[in-house]
Formats: sequence, C-alpha cells, structure tokens
Amino acid sequence: MSDLHTIALIPQFPLHRAGEELARLRAAAPLVHCLSNEVVQSVTANVLLALGASPAMIVAEEEVAEFAAMADALLINVGTLYPARLAAMKKAVAAANAAGTPWALDPVAAGVLSYRTDALHDLLKQRPAVIRGNASEIMCLAGEDASGKGVDSTAHSALAIAAAQRLARQTGAIVAVTGEVDYVSDGEVTWAVPWGHALMTRVVGTGCALSAVTAAFVAGATDRLAAVAAACAVMSIAGERAESACDGPGTFLPAFLDALYIMQPAMLKAVDE
Amino acid sequence: MSDLHTIALIPQFPLHRAGEELARLRAAAPLVHCLSNEVVQSVTANVLLALGASPAMIVAEEEVAEFAAMADALLINVGTLYPARLAAMKKAVAAANAAGTPWALDPVAAGVLSYRTDALHDLLKQRPAVIRGNASEIMCLAGEDASGKGVDSTAHSALAIAAAQRLARQTGAIVAVTGEVDYVSDGEVTWAVPWGHALMTRVVGTGCALSAVTAAFVAGATDRLAAVAAACAVMSIAGERAESACDGPGTFLPAFLDALYIMQPAMLKAVDE
Amino acid sequence: MSDLHTIALIPQFPLHRAGEELARLRAAAPLVHCLSNEVVQSVTANVLLALGASPAMIVAEEEVAEFAAMADALLINVGTLYPARLAAMKKAVAAANAAGTPWALDPVAAGVLSYRTDALHDLLKQRPAVIRGNASEIMCLAGEDASGKGVDSTAHSALAIAAAQRLARQTGAIVAVTGEVDYVSDGEVTWAVPWGHALMTRVVGTGCALSAVTAAFVAGATDRLAAVAAACAVMSIAGERAESACDGPGTFLPAFLDALYIMQPAMLKAVDE
Repeated sequence: MSDLHTIALIPQFPLHRAGEELARLRAAAPLVHCLSNEVVQSVTANVLLALGASPAMIVAEEEVAEFAAMADALLINVGTLYPARLAAMKKAVAAANAAGTPWALDPVAAGVLSYRTDALHDLLKQRPAVIRGNASEIMCLAGEDASGKGVDSTAHSALAIAAAQRLARQTGAIVAVTGEVDYVSDGEVTWAVPWGHALMTRVVGTGCALSAVTAAFVAGATDRLAAVAAACAVMSIAGERAESACDGPGTFLPAFLDALYIMQPAMLKAVDE
Repeated sequence: MSDLHTIALIPQFPLHRAGEELARLRAAAPLVHCLSNEVVQSVTANVLLALGASPAMIVAEEEVAEFAAMADALLINVGTLYPARLAAMKKAVAAANAAGTPWALDPVAAGVLSYRTDALHDLLKQRPAVIRGNASEIMCLAGEDASGKGVDSTAHSALAIAAAQRLARQTGAIVAVTGEVDYVSDGEVTWAVPWGHALMTRVVGTGCALSAVTAAFVAGATDRLAAVAAACAVMSIAGERAESACDGPGTFLPAFLDALYIMQPAMLKAVDE
Repeated sequence: MSDLHTIALIPQFPLHRAGEELARLRAAAPLVHCLSNEVVQSVTANVLLALGASPAMIVAEEEVAEFAAMADALLINVGTLYPARLAAMKKAVAAANAAGTPWALDPVAAGVLSYRTDALHDLLKQRPAVIRGNASEIMCLAGEDASGKGVDSTAHSALAIAAAQRLARQTGAIVAVTGEVDYVSDGEVTWAVPWGHALMTRVVGTGCALSAVTAAFVAGATDRLAAVAAACAVMSIAGERAESACDGPGTFLPAFLDALYIMQPAMLKAVDE
C-alpha cells in the first residue's frame, strides 16, 4: 500500500541525462573487472564491449587483488557461488575498496539459499557502490521476507521500492530494483526507469549484464545515482529497440547488442523530447 | 542386423502428443536445476527459457541439495566433470531422489575416458528418470563396446536401439538415443522421432540442451515416455523450422530459439495431419 | 623504427595457400582438445564446429592426459587461470608432448598479472607448436616490456614483429601476433595477414577462438607456418564477410560463424587473384 503511494511520486529519469552519462562512459572506456557467474560471462562481456567498456574476467584468488586495483570498476555476481570463487570475491572487494575502485553487487537468488544469503550479508558490509537485483533479492537484503522462485523474482519491482530506499540508506549504495519498471534510489532521491521489454526475461543474463553495466557507469561518475539510472535506461531502451527488430528471444540478443553499439546520446535525448 | 529388424517395427511418435506435452510444460513452467558442463550452460538456459521453463544453475556442494529439493526437475551433464562438480552432482541427485524430483542424465563421452565412465556407472545406480545420449554413450552405459571419438558419436543411433531398450529395462529410466533419428524407449515401448536437421550438429550444446529439455518435460509428467519423446520432437521440429530460416550454424541458433519460443501445440498437431 | 622497416619487407600470405590448408583441415576434421577460459568456451567450440573441426573441452586433471593423447591438437588458453586448471593444463601439455600432439598457447594478459606471467614462462618451456597473442602479450613473452590494459593490447601489432620473430627463434614455435594486421613468423620467414574488421574486437572470444583455430590447422600440418597463417587468414576473411552482412557486434557473430561454415578454398583463391 505504502509502495503504491510511493510509485505515484517517483519521477521518470530524464533520458537526456542517460545520454550524458553514456557519452562519459564512451569517452572513458572503463575497464570492468567481472567476477560473475558461470552462465553469463560471455553475454556480460559482449554487452560491455558493445557499449564501449572493456571487460576482463579475472577469477583466481592469486590474481584478483592485483587486478581489482587496476580496474575502473568491479562486478560481483553470486549466481554460481562456491567457496573458491567466494574467497576470490572477498579478496577482489578488499582490493577494490583499498584502491577506491567502486564495485557493484548482483545478489542473485538472495534469500533462496542460505549459503549465498550468508555470503551476501558479509559482502554487504564491504560497502558496494551499487546493488542491482530483482524485488525478492532487494527485499531479502533489506531484511524483508520475500519468496523467490529460483533466480526469477515473483514479486513486482514496485513492491520493493521502500526496501530499495531502506537498503540504500543502510549501505550507502545506489540500489536498483529491476523488473517491468526499474527503480533506482540513493535512499533520498528515487528515479523510475519505465522502458524495456518482457522478451529480455526470456534471454539468460540480461539482468546480470545490467549489473555489469551499472559497474561500468559508476566508474569515474560524479553522480552515482544518475550513473546507475543511466545504466538501467540505456539497457531498457536498447531492449525496446531490439524487440522491434527481432522475431523472438533468439534474434533478440544479437539485435540487443547491435542496439547498444549504435546507441548515441543524441538518440536518447530525442526520445526524451 | 537385429537393430535393422527393430527399426522397421518402431512407430513414429505422434506430434499431437508432443503438442499435449508442450501445453502441459508451458502451463507448469517447471523450475529446472541444471548441473551441466562449462561450455553449454548459456545455450541450455536460453533453450529452457525460450521453451517456457525456468532454468537455474546452482552448482556448489553447499547449495545443491537445498535447491534440488525445491526444483521440479534436475539435469546432470558430465561434459566437463571434475571432482568438486561430481561431488555436487552426487549431493544434488541424492536430494532430488529424497524429494521425489525426477532427474535426467546426459552421459557426455561415456566410454571415452575412464574417470567419467566410472562416475557415470555410479550415477546410474541412483535411478535417473531419463538418460539422453548418442549411440556410443548409450551403448557404453548398456555394457556394449562402442568407439567414440570425443563427444560426437561415430555410431548411427539405429545401431543403439537394442542397447537403449536394454538400458531402460536395467535402470527403469526412459532412454533416448539421439542422432539423425532419435529413439526413445522405456524398455517395452519404443518411439522414433525422425525430424531434425544436420546443422544442429554444427552448433555446440544442442544435444546437451535437449537433455535439459527432457528434464523439463518429465517434471510432473504422468507419462514419462511420452514426455521424453515430446522433448525430442519439439527440439527436432524447431531445428527444422530454424534450418529453413538461417544461412548457416551461426544464424541457426537464434532462429532455433525463436522457433522454440513461437512453437504452439496446434502447429505440432498440424504437422501430424 | 626497426619494426617499421620490417613491415615494408613482410610479404602478404597468399590466400590460395590458405585455401589449400582449409581443404586439408576439412578433410581431416581434427579433434581439438581445448583447455580454454571460462568466458569463451562456447564461442570457441562454435567456431571450430563451423570450420569443420571437432572441439572437445575436457578439463579435469583426472582426464586431460588420457584425452590429450587421443586428440589431434591441444589448445591452452590462460584467460581465467586458477591453480586446479593450471595443474590440468600442465598434465595435458605433458601428455600431448609425449604423444607428439601439437599444442597452441594463448597467453591472455601476459605481463599484466604476475601469477599467469610466471605460469606462462613455465608453459613456454614445454615447446608449444604455436603461440598466438596480441602485441603486448608477445612482447612480454619475448622478454620485452609492454604495458597491457587488461586483455586488450594497447600496442599495435606491427610494433611486436621483431618480438614475434625472436620468440619464434627462442621457442621453436610459430608465433602469430595479431591485431589490425596479423604477423605470423617461424623466426626466419614472416607473413602478413592484413584482412579482418575492427568489429571483431567488440565481440568477446574472437582472438581466443583464433588460437583454437591455429591448433586445428597445425594438426597434421607439414608446413606449420603456412598452417598458422592460414588460420589467421581464414578467420580474417570470414570477419570481412560477416561485417558486410551485419548491423553491429550482435549480428556479427552469427554472420561470422556462417561465413566460416560456407567458406570454400576456391573462394579464397578467387580473392587472391
């Protein structure tokens, strides 16, 4: 109920701001160190490359600290977590924090399985710059009960707005709760990102890739809230473009990568007007 | 020789039955827990999503038992087996069996390498609901000698019909031996699934994804033989559709996922008539 | 400066020779054992399949020695190196060498991180048949300082020609330094492979897949220098073909696989004339 009240008050993120952030990202071509899950590493790298960022998947405990300090941003995604990978993630996060490198957390299936939920609560204490998840995941991290079915949220993103705002205040992170509409909050200001297409949910890794894209956008950002909202907006608009150019989820992915590649700040500004 | 006799007697699986099973799968949207190999996890997830199932790759020893008990079906694929993953598979299978969750086994390269062949013989004792492999793999599991070259079968699927029937009787599983024609047997009744296209063999993971699809179809099935035959039929017909819409193996995969997504029970019934 | 002198003297590899090597590969359909990185295994397998080779990703310490001895060539790619995988690589290389199986080394991010750089110097002593890397990587292995940014080379391939030639003489390997133009050397003779398209750098795994393709081409080759140059030429020409049939990096990859699949020796000869 309070969430429904909240929705009416949440303004739409202006796309010309997304365009400004995209121009900044393209000029910087940030190096994004990804510790993601086994399933989506390829699509994540392709999304970052199409967008103009530079992905690097460095995963060994022996290497992550050295690399996290060189990178412009770090992504931690717990989709296929196991002890060796978790140990590497902790080292990468510590090194990123020591170097002042921002890092994004994708809490895949938080609340569904206790091993990862415990690990996520530990990781949360290490001050991520961004947390990007679906409604169930964000509600879990904010301390609310939510029933998740696998990695797909069963709750509507709007139901997690208050949780996202609270989590942002608790952690200092920008929190993005994504779904049919994405909501992005720093705990004070919250933006709605209403674009996108349902076909994205029938392609593995679009949510995980978005988390990597939030990491790319927060690299060097002066306004992290706008950077994360821009990441959501750019991915959503590319999803809409791709949907109109495809016949199903198979042809969606190539069209989506093309749309990211050809997207120009001026296009986003034009949609806004 | 006896196999050639057998072929003539094997009826073609009726596509309207495949349509009924597909309608059931779409309504149920089963959660399929996949412990697959490193190479094909992405295409496997995309195939399940395109079809209307919900994939989840949970791989850690610390998590698999908890998750296998929540899932509607489990897939075990030994393509890139190593000790930690095998230990997780054993825990997942034990939990699935305890929960009454059906599981499918893809015995990649059985008989080629002794480590996995031994592991597969152990896994076989844990009563898989489905075994899906090529001729060499099925012949190996049934105790026959077959020379495999890597993961591609060098033997024609028809040569393994008797082996598939025997393996089904030995294990209680539905056995699918796939190739140019797929044969699906419960040891008593055997169906032929003759559709498909050779281009599928030039795209990595179509066989592995089929095994995941058999798991999705047996979830909640009252007739497991029909469910597995339907899985083979749906994938084969989608392969034919994709072939007519592509220029080679690269454009085949997007077209194949699209074909799975748009396939309707009524279409399958129409092909039948 | 000396490198610029060198460029002028380097002849272009004749495409009719690439066509002859491609015909040989198609007839042999070599089994390529790949120990590659987590990100690119799927695209690597699809590239090998499209080309007419037979990929197999066998990764466990328990299996690699047995399999490397069966395979026609072996690929070692250190992109996501960690101790268990490195141990498997060492066993695979030892078994390949014992069996006389040629192996190719992709020294991803050599010089950027000390763990893998040390591992690469150890692997170099095991006499790879081919080394395929970008300018920074080849300069590092040849003992020169080069600053790499992640896995993408910041140096132009032409700047590493002398390093490639020296590395070839030091190791006995055919060395390919790839970039806008590829240079392939046995330390005495060096070929330039000038085709290709920049879009390939916006798709993850094209370089890694090329390394796997060099392994496929050296399998059974009587002229390894020509075999590796042919691998570079076939991939580059396919890249040009794909570029003219796509709208961006997303549609590039399917078009690239199709181009590899339909490429014929006669086509390459025709481009040459």
